[in-house]
Amino acid sequence: MLLSLSGILLKKTRLFKTPVLVNYFSDWLYSEEIEELLKKKRISVGNRIKIEKGRQSYEGILMPRIELGDKNSIVLKLDNGYNIGIGFGKGVKLRKIGRGHSIIKLKEREKERGVRELIFDKKLPTIAILGAGGTVASKVDYRTGGVYASFSPEDIAMQIPELKKIANIKAEEIMRVMSEDLTLEHRKKIAHAVAKEMNSGVKGVIVTHGTDTLHYTAAALSFMLKNLSCPVAIVGAQRSSDRGSSDAVMNIACAANFVTNSDVAEVCTVMHGSIKDDYCLAIRGTKVRKMHTSRRDAFRPINELPIARIWAESNKIEIVNQNYRKRTKDRSKVKIDDKFEPKVALIKCYPGLDTEIFDFYIDKGYKGIVIEGTGLGHTPTLGAQSLLPKIEKAIAAGIPVVMTSQCLYGRVHPAVYHNLRELSKRGVIFLEDMLPEVAYIKLMWVLGHTKDLNKVREMMLKNIAGEISECTEPEAFLL
Amino acid sequence: MLLSLSGILLKKTRLFKTPVLVNYFSDWLYSEEIEELLKKKRISVGNRIKIEKGRQSYEGILMPRIELGDKNSIVLKLDNGYNIGIGFGKGVKLRKIGRGHSIIKLKEREKERGVRELIFDKKLPTIAILGAGGTVASKVDYRTGGVYASFSPEDIAMQIPELKKIANIKAEEIMRVMSEDLTLEHRKKIAHAVAKEMNSGVKGVIVTHGTDTLHYTAAALSFMLKNLSCPVAIVGAQRSSDRGSSDAVMNIACAANFVTNSDVAEVCTVMHGSIKDDYCLAIRGTKVRKMHTSRRDAFRPINELPIARIWAESNKIEIVNQNYRKRTKDRSKVKIDDKFEPKVALIKCYPGLDTEIFDFYIDKGYKGIVIEGTGLGHTPTLGAQSLLPKIEKAIAAGIPVVMTSQCLYGRVHPAVYHNLRELSKRGVIFLEDMLPEVAYIKLMWVLGHTKDLNKVREMMLKNIAGEISECTEPEAFLL
Repeated sequence: MLLSLSGILLKKTRLFKTPVLVNYFSDWLYSEEIEELLKKKRISVGNRIKIEKGRQSYEGILMPRIELGDKNSIVLKLDNGYNIGIGFGKGVKLRKIGRGHSIIKLKEREKERGVRELIFDKKLPTIAILGAGGTVASKVDYRTGGVYASFSPEDIAMQIPELKKIANIKAEEIMRVMSEDLTLEHRKKIAHAVAKEMNSGVKGVIVTHGTDTLHYTAAALSFMLKNLSCPVAIVGAQRSSDRGSSDAVMNIACAANFVTNSDVAEVCTVMHGSIKDDYCLAIRGTKVRKMHTSRRDAFRPINELPIARIWAESNKIEIVNQNYRKRTKDRSKVKIDDKFEPKVALIKCYPGLDTEIFDFYIDKGYKGIVIEGTGLGHTPTLGAQSLLPKIEKAIAAGIPVVMTSQCLYGRVHPAVYHNLRELSKRGVIFLEDMLPEVAYIKLMWVLGHTKDLNKVREMMLKNIAGEISECTEPEAFLL
Repeated sequence: MLLSLSGILLKKTRLFKTPVLVNYFSDWLYSEEIEELLKKKRISVGNRIKIEKGRQSYEGILMPRIELGDKNSIVLKLDNGYNIGIGFGKGVKLRKIGRGHSIIKLKEREKERGVRELIFDKKLPTIAILGAGGTVASKVDYRTGGVYASFSPEDIAMQIPELKKIANIKAEEIMRVMSEDLTLEHRKKIAHAVAKEMNSGVKGVIVTHGTDTLHYTAAALSFMLKNLSCPVAIVGAQRSSDRGSSDAVMNIACAANFVTNSDVAEVCTVMHGSIKDDYCLAIRGTKVRKMHTSRRDAFRPINELPIARIWAESNKIEIVNQNYRKRTKDRSKVKIDDKFEPKVALIKCYPGLDTEIFDFYIDKGYKGIVIEGTGLGHTPTLGAQSLLPKIEKAIAAGIPVVMTSQCLYGRVHPAVYHNLRELSKRGVIFLEDMLPEVAYIKLMWVLGHTKDLNKVREMMLKNIAGEISECTEPEAFLL
C-alpha cells in the first residue's frame, strides 16, 4: 500500500472508534474543522448527506477529499454522477440522510498485505478485486487537470452500490502503476495474485488495470494461468473514477456480475461495449485490442465474436460466442506457468524500414522476432529493401521469426503470393489470425519453454489460449 | 513495359492485321493450332464465343492464355465471372457469337512509353489508368496456385464493359511491382505520371496498385500533388482479376465513374465498401488504412467519414462527407513537391521495447522518429524501460520525435496524464488524430523541406492534405 504511514495509523485509529461503518478512504482527510463536524454527526465517507449553504442545497454521497484538493471543500457525488466541491464555512449545514453504501462488516484479513474484505451480506459469494493501477483507480487533480493513480480497489468498490447485491468483495491493491509502465515482472505478479485468490476459493477475480497495455496483460495472463476454475475479468476505465462520465463503475459492476454469475472460466476483458452505457463486452484475453485512444468502448474483439454481452441494467449475461472454457466443479488448483524469455522483438514492417534493425536485434542476442507485416504477411523482398537476407540470417542464428499482420483483422497466409512463399520457404512461421501483440507475448512465453526451432513452430501454431481462431466470423470485422 | 520483345513484336504485327478490334492481351499466345483457328474465324480475345466439346457447350468471353498455362487450353470467362480452361483438340468447335467488348479505336499515342488509348465513343471524356502493379493486375498461376503480376492496365480495362459508357481510357503501365516492394522512388514516379496525365487534360486519373502499401502511396501522393484539378483514385483488388470473386472490375468501374463524374479534386482510395458488391467508398488518401488481410472491403476510413459512396449498379455518387476540395474551372498546372528525407523511422512502442533502438537510429543519422505509442500517446516512462532519456537524446540531436497511437482510432493528447506531459515537456510533437503510417510519410516529406525543429513542429501540426481532422466523427469509429 502506498499510503503514508500516518495515513495508515489514522485509518486504524478510526477503525476502532467507528466499529460498523468505516471511512476506508483515508489517504487524505478533510480539514480538522470538517472532520470534527463529521464525527459529531456520525457521518462517514460513503453516507448519503444533505448540505445546505445559503439558499442552495445539495444531496449526494460524501466522497473522500481529492488529492491535493482544498481540505476545506466537501466533495459530494451527485446523483448525476458528477462530483462537486462545496466550500465549507459558517452557515453550512450537514445532515446524514442515509447510510449510502453500508457495509455490514469490514474484515482486515491479511493486514500486512493490505487485503480487506467488504462483507455486504453473508449469503453472497466472495469475489476478489485486485488493483493494478491505471485510470480506473485514478482521479483528476483539479489544480492541474492531470490524472493520478490514487484509488485503492476498496475505494472503487465503495463507489459501486450495485456490488452489494452481487458479491462480497475481497480487495487488494497489488500495485499502483499506470499501464504504460508495467513490465513483464508486474504481469507475473498479477498472475500470482490472481492464482492465489482463486486457490483461496473466491467465485471470480477482477483485476483493475490501466487501459494502454491492458490487452498485453490479458494475453500474458491467458498464457500464464493454467487450469482456471473461474473467470478473470481485467477491467479498466477510459475516464477517471471521479468524473461523471467515468466508465469505471459500470465496467466493474458488469465484471462483478460476470465473474460471479457466468460459467466462463477464461481470462477476459470486461469494458464498455458501446458508448451508451447499456452493456459491457467480455472478450477473450487473446482476441482483444484497444482500438481507440479515448472512447469508453475502445476495447474490441478482433477476428472473433466477444464471449458475452453483460447488460448493465438487467444484469443479464448474454452469451454471444459459445466457444469458451467452462467452470468445472473440480476445484483443482490453478497453476502458473510464468516462464518467459524477454528478449523478443516486435518489428512493424513498413516501406523503407531499415533492414539493419534485424542485425541490431541479432547482435544484441535477441531470441525471437515477431514481424508485423503488411497484408497477408508481406515484407519487402526486392533490392536493398529486401528483408529476406536478414530473415535468413536470423533463422540461421536459431532465432525464430514469426509473421502477423498490421491490418490486425484477418489471417496471414504463407502461400497465396509468390513473395509469401519466399518468406515461408526461409522458415518464417505464419501465425494465422493471431494479433501482433498477442504473438509478441506468446513468443516470449514459448521461448521461455524451448529454444528448439521445430518445437517453437509447433507451439506457436498450436492454439493454447484461444489466440488462433479456426475460422474467422465475418461479423467480427470492425465489431 | 515488362513484356518480352517478341511479345511486343507479335502484338504489333497483329495490330496491322486486325484494324478494328485488337487483341491487346498478347504476352502469351495460344498454341499455333488455336491461333490459326481464331484467325480463320476472325475471333479475337474479348469476343463472346461459344465452344462445343462433345455434349458440353460453353459460352463466354475469350480470355488471353494464362501465363505459364497450357497453350492448348482455351480460357473463357463465364458469365458468373469465373474463368475456365477448355482443352482444345479434335471435335472442339468455336463460334463467335458477339463482339464482346468492342472498341472503336485503339490509339497508340506514345509508343515508346507504351501509352495506349481505348476510344469507345468520341463524345466521352478521357480518363487515365496508370498501372503500378499489384493483385489488381495479377492472375493466378493455376499450376502453382500462386498469384503473379501480369495484366497491363489496358488488359484490365478490357474486362470492364461498364467503362464504355463512362469514359475513353488512356492506359499506361508505369511499373509492375507488388506493393510490398514499392519504394519512395516508385511513389515519386507515380506522382509524376499522375501530374503528367492531369496536365495533358484528362478528366481524372486512376492508379492501379497493390493493396499492401496502397495507403502509404495514397498518403505520399496526397502530400506530393499540389493544385489538383481533378480526382486521383488509387485502386487495388484483394482478389486477382481472373477470379470470379475479384473486386478489380467493380473497383475500377466505380473509380472510373468517380474520377469522371464527381467534383472531388483529391487523392482518394476507391475500393469495396462492403462485401456485397453494392458500393465502393472513396476515402481521403490520408485517412485510410488496410484493416483486413483478405476481405474486399478491407480499406476503411479512420477517424473520418468517407468522402463518397459510389453505387455499382445505379452509378450514383453519394457524397457522405462534404468536407473536400472541389474541382475548379481554373485548369492551372498540377505541381509536384516530391522532396522527401527518407531517413525517418517508425517505432511501434510496446511493453519491453528495447530503448537502445533509439540509439540505433540516432547513430545511423536518422533525421526523424515517429512513435506509435499506446493509448493517448504513451511510452514507458519508468525505470530501465523508460524512453524519456532516449527521446531527450534524439531531440537534443535535432531529431524531431512525433507521437501517434497504435489504437489507430482516436486522437493523441499531450496533457491528459502526467506521463504525457513528461513527453510533451521534452518536445515530443503530438499529432492529433493522424495515422502512424501517414505521420511517417508526412515527416519524411516535411523533413525534405526543413530540418528546423520549430518549423517541423509547425508543419507537422498544420493540416496540409486532410491528415488532421478538426473533430472526430463518432460514426467514423470502426466504420
